[in-house]
Amino acid sequence: MWFCTVIKKKKQEGSMLETLKEAVCAANLELVKRGAVIYTWGNVSGIDREKGLMVIKPSGVPYESMTAGDMVAVDVETGETVEGKWKPSSDTETHLALYRAFPEIGGVTHTHSVNAAAFAQAGLDIPALGTTHADYFYGDIPCTRALTEEETKNAYEKNTGAVIIETVRCRGYEPLAVPGALVRNHGPFAWGKNAADAVYHAVVMETAAEMALKTKLLNPSASLPAYILDEHYQRKHGPNATYGQGK
Amino acid sequence: MWFCTVIKKKKQEGSMLETLKEAVCAANLELVKRGAVIYTWGNVSGIDREKGLMVIKPSGVPYESMTAGDMVAVDVETGETVEGKWKPSSDTETHLALYRAFPEIGGVTHTHSVNAAAFAQAGLDIPALGTTHADYFYGDIPCTRALTEEETKNAYEKNTGAVIIETVRCRGYEPLAVPGALVRNHGPFAWGKNAADAVYHAVVMETAAEMALKTKLLNPSASLPAYILDEHYQRKHGPNATYGQGK
Amino acid sequence: MWFCTVIKKKKQEGSMLETLKEAVCAANLELVKRGAVIYTWGNVSGIDREKGLMVIKPSGVPYESMTAGDMVAVDVETGETVEGKWKPSSDTETHLALYRAFPEIGGVTHTHSVNAAAFAQAGLDIPALGTTHADYFYGDIPCTRALTEEETKNAYEKNTGAVIIETVRCRGYEPLAVPGALVRNHGPFAWGKNAADAVYHAVVMETAAEMALKTKLLNPSASLPAYILDEHYQRKHGPNATYGQGK
Amino acid sequence: MWFCTVIKKKKQEGSMLETLKEAVCAANLELVKRGAVIYTWGNVSGIDREKGLMVIKPSGVPYESMTAGDMVAVDVETGETVEGKWKPSSDTETHLALYRAFPEIGGVTHTHSVNAAAFAQAGLDIPALGTTHADYFYGDIPCTRALTEEETKNAYEKNTGAVIIETVRCRGYEPLAVPGALVRNHGPFAWGKNAADAVYHAVVMETAAEMALKTKLLNPSASLPAYILDEHYQRKHGPNATYGQGK
Repeated sequence: MWFCTVIKKKKQEGSMLETLKEAVCAANLELVKRGAVIYTWGNVSGIDREKGLMVIKPSGVPYESMTAGDMVAVDVETGETVEGKWKPSSDTETHLALYRAFPEIGGVTHTHSVNAAAFAQAGLDIPALGTTHADYFYGDIPCTRALTEEETKNAYEKNTGAVIIETVRCRGYEPLAVPGALVRNHGPFAWGKNAADAVYHAVVMETAAEMALKTKLLNPSASLPAYILDEHYQRKHGPNATYGQGK
Repeated sequence: MWFCTVIKKKKQEGSMLETLKEAVCAANLELVKRGAVIYTWGNVSGIDREKGLMVIKPSGVPYESMTAGDMVAVDVETGETVEGKWKPSSDTETHLALYRAFPEIGGVTHTHSVNAAAFAQAGLDIPALGTTHADYFYGDIPCTRALTEEETKNAYEKNTGAVIIETVRCRGYEPLAVPGALVRNHGPFAWGKNAADAVYHAVVMETAAEMALKTKLLNPSASLPAYILDEHYQRKHGPNATYGQGK
Repeated sequence: MWFCTVIKKKKQEGSMLETLKEAVCAANLELVKRGAVIYTWGNVSGIDREKGLMVIKPSGVPYESMTAGDMVAVDVETGETVEGKWKPSSDTETHLALYRAFPEIGGVTHTHSVNAAAFAQAGLDIPALGTTHADYFYGDIPCTRALTEEETKNAYEKNTGAVIIETVRCRGYEPLAVPGALVRNHGPFAWGKNAADAVYHAVVMETAAEMALKTKLLNPSASLPAYILDEHYQRKHGPNATYGQGK
Repeated sequence: MWFCTVIKKKKQEGSMLETLKEAVCAANLELVKRGAVIYTWGNVSGIDREKGLMVIKPSGVPYESMTAGDMVAVDVETGETVEGKWKPSSDTETHLALYRAFPEIGGVTHTHSVNAAAFAQAGLDIPALGTTHADYFYGDIPCTRALTEEETKNAYEKNTGAVIIETVRCRGYEPLAVPGALVRNHGPFAWGKNAADAVYHAVVMETAAEMALKTKLLNPSASLPAYILDEHYQRKHGPNATYGQGK
């Protein structure tokens, strides 16, 4: 009866990918609900590390009619589409680069949310100025350098991923401690433990960006003591976290 | 039986104009849905080049009760109303001027959306500072000079069209590559392949304007390298476009 | 049968006041719908010049449950409540002062809408910088001087009306040509032909204020040529108005 | 039959706590409705002074599914949970400190609303610049000093309460006359006669903050005469208050 096990495993595999597709679709729709995207802009993906597959939103398909069945599964190693009726998001290579570089992440999201994009266009980090930021981002949200002409003309999407990775590493950040970055002249990318978590961080980033812009208008020299950044981040994420219903 | 063909053709013509009216009405209502207009402000038109007819929103009629049957058909050459129970939009002559000058466009929209209007009132272009802008507008969105007193007092609406056309040509822009402009002290006009496309560009312009205003508040000297503008515009619109589900 | 006529006249009077109450209630609810007020803030009134009665929102009653029957009728000459189960708005004396001074107006509205209030708090006119403003306000929307301590401590609401009237007259404005003003450190009052028109002007004023604030951030020296102000105002309101469906 | 009275009293006690739970839950949900919080952010509590119990939102539970039964009752003296299936809000110790210091208050709310948080991040009071502010806050809304490293690392939430209390006392404020404060680098806390009143003050504070930010952008030297602050506050809250339907 060995084939029964095989079939069962196949079925489970199928259903696990279905579950991931549902989660990635729901995370994409959450972007609309939170006002972080309009039209077909933005995209969210999730990864199944065991199968080596990434599930991502298709390119240019409207959110209004999107279902889990529209999601596209891509082989993380080869970048080839393995399942799906559509072409994957045009930012697929950026997502893949992030998954390959940061093994601890399980979801990635990209938006053009207005305030975060304004910092990206200004070429500035979103500075950590308060506890709203510190609760989720353990430091300034970094803005990358501009891509060179060479990097832009060849493998642009892949190089967009590379410049994010370079920036995170130069700052000495743990990817899940500062779960996002701004691509200069472009906009925010965020990530997290899974697709929903990545969307959550994209929404927090947009809120932190709006607060930071207004703070700077009120007081250009505003700053946050390091020990408050520390306390708030640890309160939610440290080994002795006290927030929420965990034990 | 030759008259059967005539009747059939008439019917098709009728139904083609009905289709255009439906599309123009839907595009006008989309303006409300996207928060780009309030009350009876703004207007969208579409053109049937074969028939030489433009279909446009009536003047001062509320969006709440608007249906395709309220749309007005105007002869593009003479500017005379050929069908409809209402007077056409007071901006009709501006729309007509744009259709006559730019044969490649199929829809025009005009709004008083806040951020784009602020740039128009400031007499400034909406500068291309990031990829949100570059995805749809291949360069700064130009602001016209102010109309002269003479141009304002006589044939104001037609001259509003003329100053847009003059500006687009002075910049050496392809109308569909930079599908919109700001009329100084007035507000944005956008255009596109058809009415829905024109509305889409009006909404992108408003978003780009809000981002640009906030970017300038953060960093007055922000700018965008030309090769990134190029890459993003070509990725969506060039001969080798990779965005969306096209082949 | 002379008494029949009396009864009939009484009934008509009754029903005319009912109609005004319905209109004033609807205008108050429109303020909520347009995002111009929250909680019990703001108020709208309408006048019946023949009867010498003003109908106004009650003081501190929530919009959620408000009906025409909650409106309060006040004698314009004496200021006394003649009908209604509630106390009239605390701004009643301001409304009455405006009706007495400006016989051409039929409705008044007061809000604390954010952008107009910011100009009032800054002690600045909302400058006419574009056609959105010029379509409804034929000049800068004036900000009054601050009330003196004496004017504030005695008959504050009546003096609030007086300082608006003083400001409109000092500027040489026709009340319906510039249908609103800012009370310094307080907020906007708007008026019009009737209650609905007053609300419309309050919403336009808020939009014009947001545009003007953003315009000034982009270009502190922005201004509007007088002939464009003229053209736009006349296009909608002059003897040869071309906007809308009028003959 | 003395035990009947005991049982009856028990039942009443039970139902009084139920009533408080309903009120606190409703006040928490009101925060969402007013746009003052997203996700699980923010929290509202109410107190039963006779029983010595505070009812507060649980930590990290989403608003979408929250019911009165999710509220947590905490002993005000000991800080221990006496009823509820969840851990109380992580800000519980801050709420308790405020109730202990200010016997006249009956509700406390905490949000990260954007404009108030921007002032907190800038380390600035929300200045009283107009009557919207003066109607509810009888003076500038104070911003605390930053907590020291010592205060942050030990008993952070309790010290957050302490620095608010210190600030209110240093300013010589009556807690119900200026029913809120900003914690530097963190955000707003507001309070009131009960939970609903505390939420109301949090929403007013956010509105006043947005107006003040925009006022300062228009005119950095804007200010409010003391006698207008006085008149407006007394009109709503003084012994001769004229606002609303009170006798």
